[in-house]
Amino acid sequence: MTDSSAGKTALDPFGMTVVEDYERLYEEFGIQPFKSLLPQISKPYLSMRRGVIFGHRDFDRVLNAMKKREKFAVMSGIKPTGEFHLGTLMTAREVIYFQQQGAAAFYCIADVEAYEDNNISFERSEKYAVGNVADLLALGFDPKRGYIYRQSKDQRVKDLAIIFGRKVTLATMKAIYGERNMGLYISALIQAGDILMPQLEDFNGPKPTVVPVGVDQDPHLRLTRDLAAKFHRKYSFVLPSSTYHKLMKGLDGSPKMSKRNPMSYFTFQETPKNIAKKISNAFTGGRPTAQEQRKLGGTPEICPIYEMCMFHFFEEDKDVVQLYHDCKSGKILCGEDKQRLIKIVLNFVKEHRRKRQQNVDKARKILQVA
Amino acid sequence: MTDSSAGKTALDPFGMTVVEDYERLYEEFGIQPFKSLLPQISKPYLSMRRGVIFGHRDFDRVLNAMKKREKFAVMSGIKPTGEFHLGTLMTAREVIYFQQQGAAAFYCIADVEAYEDNNISFERSEKYAVGNVADLLALGFDPKRGYIYRQSKDQRVKDLAIIFGRKVTLATMKAIYGERNMGLYISALIQAGDILMPQLEDFNGPKPTVVPVGVDQDPHLRLTRDLAAKFHRKYSFVLPSSTYHKLMKGLDGSPKMSKRNPMSYFTFQETPKNIAKKISNAFTGGRPTAQEQRKLGGTPEICPIYEMCMFHFFEEDKDVVQLYHDCKSGKILCGEDKQRLIKIVLNFVKEHRRKRQQNVDKARKILQVA
Repeated sequence: MTDSSAGKTALDPFGMTVVEDYERLYEEFGIQPFKSLLPQISKPYLSMRRGVIFGHRDFDRVLNAMKKREKFAVMSGIKPTGEFHLGTLMTAREVIYFQQQGAAAFYCIADVEAYEDNNISFERSEKYAVGNVADLLALGFDPKRGYIYRQSKDQRVKDLAIIFGRKVTLATMKAIYGERNMGLYISALIQAGDILMPQLEDFNGPKPTVVPVGVDQDPHLRLTRDLAAKFHRKYSFVLPSSTYHKLMKGLDGSPKMSKRNPMSYFTFQETPKNIAKKISNAFTGGRPTAQEQRKLGGTPEICPIYEMCMFHFFEEDKDVVQLYHDCKSGKILCGEDKQRLIKIVLNFVKEHRRKRQQNVDKARKILQVA
Repeated sequence: MTDSSAGKTALDPFGMTVVEDYERLYEEFGIQPFKSLLPQISKPYLSMRRGVIFGHRDFDRVLNAMKKREKFAVMSGIKPTGEFHLGTLMTAREVIYFQQQGAAAFYCIADVEAYEDNNISFERSEKYAVGNVADLLALGFDPKRGYIYRQSKDQRVKDLAIIFGRKVTLATMKAIYGERNMGLYISALIQAGDILMPQLEDFNGPKPTVVPVGVDQDPHLRLTRDLAAKFHRKYSFVLPSSTYHKLMKGLDGSPKMSKRNPMSYFTFQETPKNIAKKISNAFTGGRPTAQEQRKLGGTPEICPIYEMCMFHFFEEDKDVVQLYHDCKSGKILCGEDKQRLIKIVLNFVKEHRRKRQQNVDKARKILQVA
């Protein structure tokens, strides 16, 4: 499949072979392509420029607020079940980007979801939460212009869940989440509360809100938009907007990074040795032999190493383009590419962990953890 | 049916013709007969002595605590969807009885349930709640030795609902409550929180707790006892006990007093004229003509007027016994009986409303209503 699909598609450093799946999202679910909005964004973020953010719902609304310097919000969060990794990094950076563009920023520690979905006790998730918030602060989130909270401690999101519950049928829940325990459904309603809380009077009332998420989170958004409409009379909610980024392939060649599969990803708390090893052993878009690769070139479209450079670690677009062509032409081999990436990643991790350490006390204070 | 069933059963002023239905509860659901415990209760309440409270679950546990003067609790509540009536009076008086026997008393204003089940907004239920609490205080509830709260305002019951949700399947909810909206299920879990909150550390830890309810509420108790067992390791919950009172027949001859049927019941805020009229027009166990009644006697077992005297308004057991025999023997006619009851009820209502008025400010303060 790899060769033929690489052959069929036009050369595009920011395209991916799985793009057909994304096309289906446009058609079936009404997600809009992001690309056409790009020219209107004055300082597009890296993942916007490179097509990592490929789709949206009603992002026009947020864009207008940005242009006119009107109030708007950005909202996302993390399930405190472990340490920061590349997936949470992506979302956190998107939140910080919008905060820097003027958004009131909301970052939720989804500890109720961690409990209901993963059976992580509130005592245990508190420890992860402190680390996660320290990570967020280290990446540049400004707590003075944002609100970081735990679901279990914010009465507003729980109360919104109770209010929303009256207009949610069992059939809706089952359609979105399957046959699950009651707690999981409650946490889904609290999540709708998370997304709409930025529009409560406590936070300066209704406003466009963007929720940057991985495309797998779209069902939550559909549920929440539905609830925003159903409770419009009471709260004057503006339907929340969303942007969708692509999901990263697993380092081991699996279709998606996953906690169930430790070789598919790494966290920023792993040892440098471990991280280097996972990258070294990663699946790539390379050929069986160096000779073949020199002759035929690699397939960056299916390569998690290339993806990591493009999604996260190459600051300049031109460097991504260069890598793409060097790979395609056989100029660079996988080993070489991996060594370069390892150096960049380990530098980033080292620097990030230093900043993170400086922010642990602040994180404790924000979460009111003793 | 009326005559034959009256003929089949032995003369028993405190029995009812529907007793076969209650027998079924013993067999099918494991509800225990209350009667056998009666000799052990030093000051049994009126409804215990007269068999109105006919069944229980694990009441022995509460009885032991009462005997040994160990800590125990009583818990019940009201859905703030209207004014006090004979059903809410029954439960309130039972709660007050146990409080007077030394229980820590909990009275819940189920405003989340009123919202989810009856679509009563929190603004609207607040008004009813103030009246309901004033009623409770007028009846003798001592707020210094008890806790009165609204579900929507107490974080503990909401947090218990979230914690319990993880171990409740959809199938369980559907089996108990049928196919309902998510909110109704959430309110059911909050109700489990209401029943178990008296055992939290905030309230002096685990203890026997009695929940006096109408027998129609047993499914909630079963759910809650199941949750108490499932979360025993975390909270050391003692399985909650319950007592079950019979449900009153409708004044209009319908099997049960119901808000859907305004002629079947009255509230204490109705005009004396209205109350008198509803009693006057009530269905009875009388004969078609006075002559027949004198000759054959009435059927108190099916008579809501007799029931009202026995369940609520005759202080002395001997007066109930007297009425039973006077009716059976044809000595008293229905009109006469109704006039006597009207006098007692209107006296009670007048006196109660006076006391209630004196307690409205206190009720506002307890509920923190401006």
